[in-house]
Amino acid sequence: MKTNNMQNCLQIIPLGGLEQIGMNITAVVYGDSIVVVDCGLAFPEDEMLGIDLVIPDITYLREHADKVKGFVITHGHEDHIGALPYVLKELNVPVYSTRLTIAVIEGKLKEHNLLDVTDRHVVNYGDRICLGELEVEFIRTNHSIADACALAIKSPAGTIVHTGDFKVDYTPVFGDPIDLTRFAELGREGVLALLCDSTNAERPGFTNSERTVGTTFDSIFADHRDCRILVSTFASNVDRVQQIVDSAYKYGRKVVVEGRSMVNIIQTASELGYIQIPENTLIDVEELRNYPDEKTVIVTTGSQGESMAALSRIATNIHKKVTIKPGDLVIFSSNPIPGNEKAVSRVINELCQKGADVIFQDTHVSGHACQEEIKLIYTLVKPRYAIPVHGEYRHLKAQANIAHMMGIPFDHIKILSSGEVLSLNEHECKVTDTVKTGAVFVDGLGIGDVGNVVMRDRQILSQDGMILILLTLEKGTGTLLAGPDIITRGFIYVKESDELIEEMQGIVEETVESLKERNITDWGRMKNAMKDELSGYVWKKMKRKPMILPVITEVEI
Amino acid sequence: MKTNNMQNCLQIIPLGGLEQIGMNITAVVYGDSIVVVDCGLAFPEDEMLGIDLVIPDITYLREHADKVKGFVITHGHEDHIGALPYVLKELNVPVYSTRLTIAVIEGKLKEHNLLDVTDRHVVNYGDRICLGELEVEFIRTNHSIADACALAIKSPAGTIVHTGDFKVDYTPVFGDPIDLTRFAELGREGVLALLCDSTNAERPGFTNSERTVGTTFDSIFADHRDCRILVSTFASNVDRVQQIVDSAYKYGRKVVVEGRSMVNIIQTASELGYIQIPENTLIDVEELRNYPDEKTVIVTTGSQGESMAALSRIATNIHKKVTIKPGDLVIFSSNPIPGNEKAVSRVINELCQKGADVIFQDTHVSGHACQEEIKLIYTLVKPRYAIPVHGEYRHLKAQANIAHMMGIPFDHIKILSSGEVLSLNEHECKVTDTVKTGAVFVDGLGIGDVGNVVMRDRQILSQDGMILILLTLEKGTGTLLAGPDIITRGFIYVKESDELIEEMQGIVEETVESLKERNITDWGRMKNAMKDELSGYVWKKMKRKPMILPVITEVEI
Repeated sequence: MKTNNMQNCLQIIPLGGLEQIGMNITAVVYGDSIVVVDCGLAFPEDEMLGIDLVIPDITYLREHADKVKGFVITHGHEDHIGALPYVLKELNVPVYSTRLTIAVIEGKLKEHNLLDVTDRHVVNYGDRICLGELEVEFIRTNHSIADACALAIKSPAGTIVHTGDFKVDYTPVFGDPIDLTRFAELGREGVLALLCDSTNAERPGFTNSERTVGTTFDSIFADHRDCRILVSTFASNVDRVQQIVDSAYKYGRKVVVEGRSMVNIIQTASELGYIQIPENTLIDVEELRNYPDEKTVIVTTGSQGESMAALSRIATNIHKKVTIKPGDLVIFSSNPIPGNEKAVSRVINELCQKGADVIFQDTHVSGHACQEEIKLIYTLVKPRYAIPVHGEYRHLKAQANIAHMMGIPFDHIKILSSGEVLSLNEHECKVTDTVKTGAVFVDGLGIGDVGNVVMRDRQILSQDGMILILLTLEKGTGTLLAGPDIITRGFIYVKESDELIEEMQGIVEETVESLKERNITDWGRMKNAMKDELSGYVWKKMKRKPMILPVITEVEI
Repeated sequence: MKTNNMQNCLQIIPLGGLEQIGMNITAVVYGDSIVVVDCGLAFPEDEMLGIDLVIPDITYLREHADKVKGFVITHGHEDHIGALPYVLKELNVPVYSTRLTIAVIEGKLKEHNLLDVTDRHVVNYGDRICLGELEVEFIRTNHSIADACALAIKSPAGTIVHTGDFKVDYTPVFGDPIDLTRFAELGREGVLALLCDSTNAERPGFTNSERTVGTTFDSIFADHRDCRILVSTFASNVDRVQQIVDSAYKYGRKVVVEGRSMVNIIQTASELGYIQIPENTLIDVEELRNYPDEKTVIVTTGSQGESMAALSRIATNIHKKVTIKPGDLVIFSSNPIPGNEKAVSRVINELCQKGADVIFQDTHVSGHACQEEIKLIYTLVKPRYAIPVHGEYRHLKAQANIAHMMGIPFDHIKILSSGEVLSLNEHECKVTDTVKTGAVFVDGLGIGDVGNVVMRDRQILSQDGMILILLTLEKGTGTLLAGPDIITRGFIYVKESDELIEEMQGIVEETVESLKERNITDWGRMKNAMKDELSGYVWKKMKRKPMILPVITEVEI
C-alpha cells in the first residue's frame, strides 16, 4: 500500500459486495486495528460454468493478518456469513454477532470442522466491543431474518454507522422495532459516515411490515378450508414460518417443514426461542398420511425454483414423501430474486400441470428499506459523508440521489468499487489507494483452482464442444502411419455425420502432407497448422467454433 | 395417424408454442385441407448450450404435404414468423398475411435466398381466402407491431376464431382499433372454438393504450431539455418509434436509429407508410457530431440486454460511433422478458457507471390483452369451446379460469399440449390422437444435427471440463510403452496442479498394470476401467465429474 498522506483518518475498504449482490465484506481500519464487517459469499453468475460458490479474495486481510481484530457480522444470511468457513481457515480471528446469527454460523463451522478452533462471541443489542482502537456497537434493526443489527464503529477519527441489511418494521413479528432512538442519539453525537443498504433504493415508499403477510395468510387459509396447503419461502425467514404456523394453528392444521436448510434453521430458532410453535402442531412428513389433506400445511424451501430444493422435487414428482394432488394450493411466499424468474416459472408450470392452484400475490414483503425508510435513517443519523452499500451500481446510485436529496453534497457521497481505500476524517473523504480484491471460485472441493483460463475453456466447450485429432507419425520423416482419427464430443451427432468426419480427415491428411513437403516437424507448428485448417473449414461449413485438440504419437520404425 | 371416429369434424393440432413462449405454429385440418397458422421460432433456454434458435419439428406437415394449402400469419414477430425460412425449404406452400407482415417475412426470405421461390400473398383486413375446404378471414387487432390480425377459419364443421397476439387499443398510434364489431358478428353467427392469447391472462385489468407511452415521452422530453436522450425499445415496435420521433420533433431534436434490425424495419415501415417521419428529422449516426447533445435522440435496439445489440455495445464502450457521456439520459422503453432481467440490469449498471441517468418507469405498455380484454373477447365471440393459446402452462390455466368465469363449462375448455389432435364439431370436442412434434435446434448453419447426446456432452463439458488420457501400448502384451499423458481442458489450472496430474498418471499406470496382469486387452474394457478408476479418484478428491476420454495407441515392436 502506498503511504497515505491524510493524518488521523479512518479507512473503509470494501473487499467485495459493490459490483454484485452478495459477497459483502468490508474492512474498517484505524491505525493498527482492522475490523471486518461481514464475510459473505455470492452465487455464481450464469457464465461461471460449473462453479458452486464465489467467495472474496482476502489477500489484503492476509497481508495485514496481525492487525485484524475480528469479524463483526450484521446478520445470518449467506451473502453476509457464507464465506466465513473458507476465510477463517486462512485467518483465524474471533467472530462477534448476535445470538441467532452466531448459532447459524456455528452450523456452518460444524460442517467445515471448524467449531473447535473458532472463537465466537455472542453480543446483545447495545453492547460495545473494543477491538484495538475501534469500538463496535451493535444496534437493533429489522430484516427478513431475526437478530439483524446495524453497527456503529467508533474511532478517534470519528464514528461510522453501517446499517447492514435492514428495513423499518414498526410491528415486527419477533422482537422490537429497529432502535431508531439509538440512530437519533448517534446522529446527535455526530456521525462521520453512513454506509446504508441500497437494495431497494430505486423503490419509492415504505416496505410493508412482515405482519401484513400474516394477515394475507389468514385470509387465504380462511378461503381454502377444503384443500391441502403448501407454502414455499426462504429457509431463513423464521418470522414467515412463525406466521404460517400461526395461521395453520388457527385453522386446525398440522404443519410439516420440508427442506434440509429450513429444518435446520427452524430447529435452531426453536431452541433459542425465536419461534413459538404450539404443541402438537409440528408433525413429521411421515405422519402426513394420518391427517386429511385439509388439516395439513407443508412449509418448504425452493421458492426460488432451485432444482434440488423440496418444492421443485415435489413439483416434478421426484420427492419421496410428498406428491402434488389436483386441488392442492401452493403459496409462493417470496419474490423471485433477479435471475431466478424462469426457474420459478418452471416450477409454477409444473405445479399447475398437476392440478395445483398457485398464489403469489401479497404473500411476501421485502426485508430491505425503500426510499422513505432510507430518508428516515439519513434524517436521524445526519452523516457527514454517505457511502451507499449493498446493491448493484444502479442501486448505489439511486441511494446517492436520495442522500443528495437529504442535503449531502455530491462530493460527500462516495460510490466505491471493491478494493478502493476510502480515507476519511472530518476534513476530508477520498480514495487514497486500492488493494487487491476479486472473486475466488469454489468448484466442488476446489477453492481458487478454477480461474479465467479454465473458465474460458469451459465456455468454448459448452458452446460447440470439441474435436480430437489423433494421428501417428513416423519419427524424423513426418510420414502418416496411422490416422488421422477424428473424435468429437458435444459438436455434432456423429452417427449421422460420416461424410463430414471423412472430409475433416481429408483436411488433416492434406495438412500433414503439406507439412511433410515443407519439412516441418516441430510439433507445435504442426498442431497449430492442423487446428487452423480444421477450424477454418468447420467455421466455413457450419459456423461453429469447437475446441480442436490434435494429439500426435510419434513412432520410430 | 389413427383413424378418427368423429364424423364431420375440424381438427386443431398445435405443433409448438404450448409448452413455452415462442415457436407458435398450429395446423387446422378439415378433410383434405390443412391450413397452418403462424410458423415461429423460440429462443434457446439456458440449458440449450451453444444453440442459436429453436424451430418446430414439422414431421406432421411433411407427411401430409399434399394437403397443406398454405401458411396464414397473424403478425410479424419472430415467435410467429421466424421459422418460416427453415420450414419453407422443406414445404414450399403459399404464405398469406397483411402488408407489413409480408414485408417483414420478405426480408427474412431474402437472407435465405428464398424470395424467388416463395409464393406470397398480401391480404387486407376483411379479406376471406379459400384454402381448400377452409375459408380464412383476416380481422384487425392491435398489438405491439402494426398489421396484426386475428383469424376466423370457417369449415363445414363450424368456425374457429384465433386471436393471434392481441390487445384492445381504443386509441392506437397507427390505424384503427381492433375490429370488435366483426368479433361480435362472428359471435352472433356462432363460433365453435376460440383460441385466445394467454400471455397476460394472469394480470387483472386492461393493458394501457400505446398512446400513454407517448404522453410519458413528451413529459420526459420536456423535463430533460439539456441532455442527450437515448431510447431503447423493441426493434419491431414501429408505433413506439413513431412516438419517440414525434416527441423529438416537438422538442427540436434530430433522431438517429441504431441497430441493424431496427434500421431495417423502420425503413420497411417508412416505405409502406406505417411510420411518418417529418423531413430533416432522421439523421445518420455520422451526423451526430454536427448537433449539440441536447438536440439529439438516439433510438436503439438492445432493450433486453442482448450483448451484441446497439445499447449493450454503447454501454460497454465497444460501439464505434456512440459513447455514453455523463448526463446522458437513457430510457428503457420496454420490460425485461422473463429470463432477461439480469442482462438488462447489467446494461443499466454499465450505463449508470458511465454517468448516465436511466429511466424505465411508465415508458412501456404490453402488447397483450389482460384479463378484462380477454373477457371482452369471450363476451363478443361466445365460443362453444375455449382453447387457450400463447403462453406457458400457468398462463393457459389462468385463461381457462377466465373462460370458465365467462360461463364456459370446464369440459368445454381444452388446454392442449403440442402434438395433440383436438377433434371438434358442435357435438363433441376431444383429443383423438397425437402427432410427432418437438424442438429442432439450429446451431450455426446446422439444423437438427445437435440433439440430446451432443447437448448432454456440452453440459458435462461446461460443468467440469474434460481429461484426456493418452497412452501407447505394445500390441499383444498391453505393456505400457509411452505415457500415460494427461491433458485437461476446463478442468483445473494445470500449471498449479503438477501433483494432481502426477497422481492421475499413477492411477492410470496402476490400472494398465492390473489389466495386463488379468490379460485384458479389449480396448473397450480397458478404456472403461481407466475411466472408472480416474473418475472415482477425481470425484473423491475434488467432487468434480469431468468428461474422461482415454486414447490408446497400439504399436507393434
